[in-house]
Amino acid sequence: MTSATSLFSPVEADLSLLTDNLKQLVGARHPILYAAAEHLFGAGGKRVRPAIVLLMSRATMPDQGITPKHRRLAEITEMIHTASLVHDDVIDESELRRGVPTVHSNFGNRIAVLAGDFLFAQSSWYLANLDNLTVVKLLSEVIRDFAEGEIQQGLNRFDTSLSIEAYLEKSYYKTASLMANSSEAAGILSGISPELAKNLYGYGRHFGLAFQIVDDILDFTSSSEALGKPVGSDLKSGNLTAPVLYALEEKPYLEGLIEREFAEEDDLEQALALIADSRGIERSRELATYHAQAAVRQLADLPPSDSLQAMIELAEYQLSRLY
Amino acid sequence: MTSATSLFSPVEADLSLLTDNLKQLVGARHPILYAAAEHLFGAGGKRVRPAIVLLMSRATMPDQGITPKHRRLAEITEMIHTASLVHDDVIDESELRRGVPTVHSNFGNRIAVLAGDFLFAQSSWYLANLDNLTVVKLLSEVIRDFAEGEIQQGLNRFDTSLSIEAYLEKSYYKTASLMANSSEAAGILSGISPELAKNLYGYGRHFGLAFQIVDDILDFTSSSEALGKPVGSDLKSGNLTAPVLYALEEKPYLEGLIEREFAEEDDLEQALALIADSRGIERSRELATYHAQAAVRQLADLPPSDSLQAMIELAEYQLSRLY
Repeated sequence: MTSATSLFSPVEADLSLLTDNLKQLVGARHPILYAAAEHLFGAGGKRVRPAIVLLMSRATMPDQGITPKHRRLAEITEMIHTASLVHDDVIDESELRRGVPTVHSNFGNRIAVLAGDFLFAQSSWYLANLDNLTVVKLLSEVIRDFAEGEIQQGLNRFDTSLSIEAYLEKSYYKTASLMANSSEAAGILSGISPELAKNLYGYGRHFGLAFQIVDDILDFTSSSEALGKPVGSDLKSGNLTAPVLYALEEKPYLEGLIEREFAEEDDLEQALALIADSRGIERSRELATYHAQAAVRQLADLPPSDSLQAMIELAEYQLSRLY
Repeated sequence: MTSATSLFSPVEADLSLLTDNLKQLVGARHPILYAAAEHLFGAGGKRVRPAIVLLMSRATMPDQGITPKHRRLAEITEMIHTASLVHDDVIDESELRRGVPTVHSNFGNRIAVLAGDFLFAQSSWYLANLDNLTVVKLLSEVIRDFAEGEIQQGLNRFDTSLSIEAYLEKSYYKTASLMANSSEAAGILSGISPELAKNLYGYGRHFGLAFQIVDDILDFTSSSEALGKPVGSDLKSGNLTAPVLYALEEKPYLEGLIEREFAEEDDLEQALALIADSRGIERSRELATYHAQAAVRQLADLPPSDSLQAMIELAEYQLSRLY
């Protein structure tokens, strides 16, 4: 099995430059944020989002190479993503993310809110200074979608009537919108046609959905060591994802457990057993496969390049994370 | 004595439309934010910032009247301001603002962070959709300055070596930048020359500084009933403002009290007495007067109108708040 990081090899040098720039940007002028920056942009981040922007940039500039604006777009993408993580952890009161204490648990709410606002603010400013109104609109859409997704997630907690469509919409807002709009923006900066740019958007959208569905499956099938948090954490907090929604169609008893918010002893264990005994995981895998394949089809009009190949393999790799 | 609200009469109808729109925008789609929206945009807000944008808009469109984009800019301005207040209250752990419980004390950190992010996100999106890159840059500067101001305020707590210049810089970031850049943006939307637009920026900058200095004086000279918080709250939290910085030049004993962060009984009372006994208040008044007068001078090239007259009186009114 390959790893995500080896798939990034066409943009490996770009990514290490990006990490240095981001640490510098957040930490250098403000000692108060220095520790948070090391924490946020230090080792451990998967950097999938900026990798996609950089791969898209290189795939659409096969001869010329990428420009400083492409690099800046990748930085903006990672800053927006990181800002939203930091605030999500305050909102959800999460203590751990991938096994590492969150900014709010390490440094307190004060620094977490401040660090997130600083990153959002800095990314807005960088964005405006890309001097491209289309790109500004695409990325401002992402910031709006994040807020919308977080609100929807709050509204739909423990709501067993949630449809798969509503789940996918929320996943788009929280995960795929950034990948979709930043992919399109990379194409716009390369000067490709609006039609081709929409295909890049399509890759990001389908890739993002596949990525999120796979993450949501792993919340049930992985070990707590690999997850860095207990198995079934999403379910416990009332965040109902694809495996649960499919299982609900087969297991009516599951509904009651969720609706009483696992109030009685063994409720969560029973719910996990019911999901494992259903076709929930299998049907979720099919859904993820559909989106990963749809993502790859969107790339059909790009000229051959290492970066194109990496994006195709990256979509396939998402599915391999399940095995 | 006149009141701020009566000075807004040329844009009174515009302001009530704006309040309705903002409540609608935040509250209507999201019950989770409805109570917060009523709280934020309900009675009590002074709406100075959108009033200035609307007055600037009318003063630069004396014959044609204002456009939907001018109205949207005023809404964006109030949204950015409100978002920053909500997050500041989380960061500063403030329980009251103008005598009213803050969003975070009423609804918790979760809703406060979410409501602030939603407002920032919505304002970014509206901003991009004004379709004017110059205006996007001006307002993204404001968002960046807010974050910078909040960080500087955190860094400089209880720092008795703070200069008046550094205090004015922080006041620019936290208060005047929004008024300055949104005033300039209103002019840009009216299609005035870049030189004249810079004068509008100048009005907003000097007005904002005068406004902040007056607020900082009132923290010492007003009653706790009028303030809606205890007298000397800024000082107690280590936020050193003009009256304190001037008093420090005359009263060396004050330095020790501040540097031990009022650790001993009566330290705060002693500090307040030393400030009252100094020329700190008087010199701060002179500084506010200088900036209010400088603000008015920036308006010299605008054609006569009710809105122009209101902006002149609004600057003078700031000083009258002190008597």
